[in-house]
Amino acid sequence: MNVNWNYPTTIRAGEGRVSEIAQICRERDMSAPLLVTDPGLAKLPMTENILEAARADGLRIGLFSDVKPNPTGANVAAGIAVFREGGHDGVIALGGGSGLDAGKAVAVAANQSCSLWDLEDVGDNWLNADPEKIVPIIAIPTTAGTGSEVGRVSVIVKEDEERKVLIFHPLMMPGCVILDPELTVGLPAVLTAATGMDALSHNLEAYCSPMYHPLAEGVSIEGIRLIKEHLPTAVAKGSDIEARRQMLVASTMGATAFQRGLGGMHALAHPLGAVYDAHHGTLNAVLMPYVLVANREVISERIARLARYLELPPTFDGFLDWVLELRNEVGIPNNLSALGIGEDRLGEIGEMAVADPSAGTNPIVHDAAAYSQIATRAVRGTL
Amino acid sequence: MNVNWNYPTTIRAGEGRVSEIAQICRERDMSAPLLVTDPGLAKLPMTENILEAARADGLRIGLFSDVKPNPTGANVAAGIAVFREGGHDGVIALGGGSGLDAGKAVAVAANQSCSLWDLEDVGDNWLNADPEKIVPIIAIPTTAGTGSEVGRVSVIVKEDEERKVLIFHPLMMPGCVILDPELTVGLPAVLTAATGMDALSHNLEAYCSPMYHPLAEGVSIEGIRLIKEHLPTAVAKGSDIEARRQMLVASTMGATAFQRGLGGMHALAHPLGAVYDAHHGTLNAVLMPYVLVANREVISERIARLARYLELPPTFDGFLDWVLELRNEVGIPNNLSALGIGEDRLGEIGEMAVADPSAGTNPIVHDAAAYSQIATRAVRGTL
Repeated sequence: MNVNWNYPTTIRAGEGRVSEIAQICRERDMSAPLLVTDPGLAKLPMTENILEAARADGLRIGLFSDVKPNPTGANVAAGIAVFREGGHDGVIALGGGSGLDAGKAVAVAANQSCSLWDLEDVGDNWLNADPEKIVPIIAIPTTAGTGSEVGRVSVIVKEDEERKVLIFHPLMMPGCVILDPELTVGLPAVLTAATGMDALSHNLEAYCSPMYHPLAEGVSIEGIRLIKEHLPTAVAKGSDIEARRQMLVASTMGATAFQRGLGGMHALAHPLGAVYDAHHGTLNAVLMPYVLVANREVISERIARLARYLELPPTFDGFLDWVLELRNEVGIPNNLSALGIGEDRLGEIGEMAVADPSAGTNPIVHDAAAYSQIATRAVRGTL
Repeated sequence: MNVNWNYPTTIRAGEGRVSEIAQICRERDMSAPLLVTDPGLAKLPMTENILEAARADGLRIGLFSDVKPNPTGANVAAGIAVFREGGHDGVIALGGGSGLDAGKAVAVAANQSCSLWDLEDVGDNWLNADPEKIVPIIAIPTTAGTGSEVGRVSVIVKEDEERKVLIFHPLMMPGCVILDPELTVGLPAVLTAATGMDALSHNLEAYCSPMYHPLAEGVSIEGIRLIKEHLPTAVAKGSDIEARRQMLVASTMGATAFQRGLGGMHALAHPLGAVYDAHHGTLNAVLMPYVLVANREVISERIARLARYLELPPTFDGFLDWVLELRNEVGIPNNLSALGIGEDRLGEIGEMAVADPSAGTNPIVHDAAAYSQIATRAVRGTL
């Protein structure tokens, strides 16, 4: 089922469409793209196929894959060096979050006179970049969760400060996205579940955000419905191409929707991920019901409306029960202690959660003590 | 409530934001924009305010308003002449459908060596235009219905063939849209109703389209909810700025959603409008229940889902009853004969409906006889 969409950017969705890569490069005046991905993906046939197809078409394509699971400033710097030495004129970002974020960061920073960190998402920093020098980006997700293929941000670890930095520029939105579900069928069930729950958290926190953005709200509602219908199948039967396709689209929808902002799940998952090195999607999945309950007072009516659309009992509890069932069905633990997280640093985590940008669009302004309390409940498994 | 959105294009929404026009022109390197609108709007203070604000800011702004309710090729040609003589470098398209469509057509065609008609939306005709020569467009809707501010098409009457021609180019999507509800408060109730029902038809036909486009599907669902909540108020109390704002956004959502395609309402409204010169939105509103019933067999489940979201009885009939009530509440007649349309040319209308591009995404492929039958029921008022 091949379809082309025009927002939030140009999207080509359908089985096998990665084969159009050479044609897309030519349409975008790229003759020497640099393929940026992670070392695991670099070894897979799908990557070799892309390289071969591009070469067969006469493109001078390069490969850079020295990218950590949480891409670092050093990774981006090394990618930029390869980009410049190879005389490349565009980036093909392939992967889960790491390959996509690293590729986007290389594309925005490779030809700038300012440093990558000068583009940290603070104030109007993005104006430090010369937009004319940002090279075209084609993004190809291989997981259904991050949605980075339609995001204008890369998350890069700044090593000397031991923190994750958001690099932002409007032109980091890839000019073309290929949503080819065949690239995701090999993903193990445990990662399908964790990334799929990440996509759910994006859609759900966007839906609960107080920002006025009805387009994004609509996108999030339908994204959640797709996940409800298809995530269990994608986890149970990874070769089901229909479920894989719907999840890939739902993931893109999550990131499209969260231009409304995120909330408490991400505000807590970010510091917990940094401190405990736990999987981002799994953290969001574990935290989801605890944050929902903490926000219950102001989101009940809104969640009831969503529950009606999902054919659940049209109440907050009807929706909450579904989240708990889904989480269980796809094999996500019920508490953070199952991820090796204890209670000793939760005061600090609460402080970091309040400072996280995602806290700004949580439907309730929780203080650090409240976030510590949510995390404590999540560690203990007491809703 | 001022918000900025990034898809399907750059949108600035909020009361009073038309005052940002000069700043937006500068950001887009426009120093001599041509304001294109219709003669009625040209006389209103809102237009004079825009011109004055631009002049005060040092912009060399021009005005062209010789635009008919259904803009003609001659209108566009005259606008292009003014554009060229004035040495303009961009277009501000202000209005309902006519001002917006005329402005967009001037912007795409003014500097081309091909003619406007060479860009008719057939095959790859849009490749006839040199994209570098299309000037920037800022769109400012003054009605909540057409959604042309986020469309990539203008409908222009080709006089010698007595038909409406769709002019298409991807770059006819305005680069910036201002959704300022204060510009719509003066719209009379009868036009608020007709245009609002047009916005409903866009969202509803997009929702029922068989095209795979979940983002658009989500947008349409929420667009319909906004119309359900706010159209009655916008009609009954035109000064209600909240209702006006929500309707303006719902209208933008309708056109964003109908990248999925439209359906039988528009397939019939187009020829009926051409033959009987009736208002497009009113036609869609009258036709709505008849087309829904004709599609009932394949859309029942989908409509029931929508009805649930809208807190209606979750059945096709629950939704249909709401459409009939809403139509009545906002003063739309129940049948086409109330618009002066008889049965004598409905055979011909059926043939034209089948040939209309909107018929291609109706959930059922109706033949000409079936469309004639739908129109006959709509004339007689027998559902």
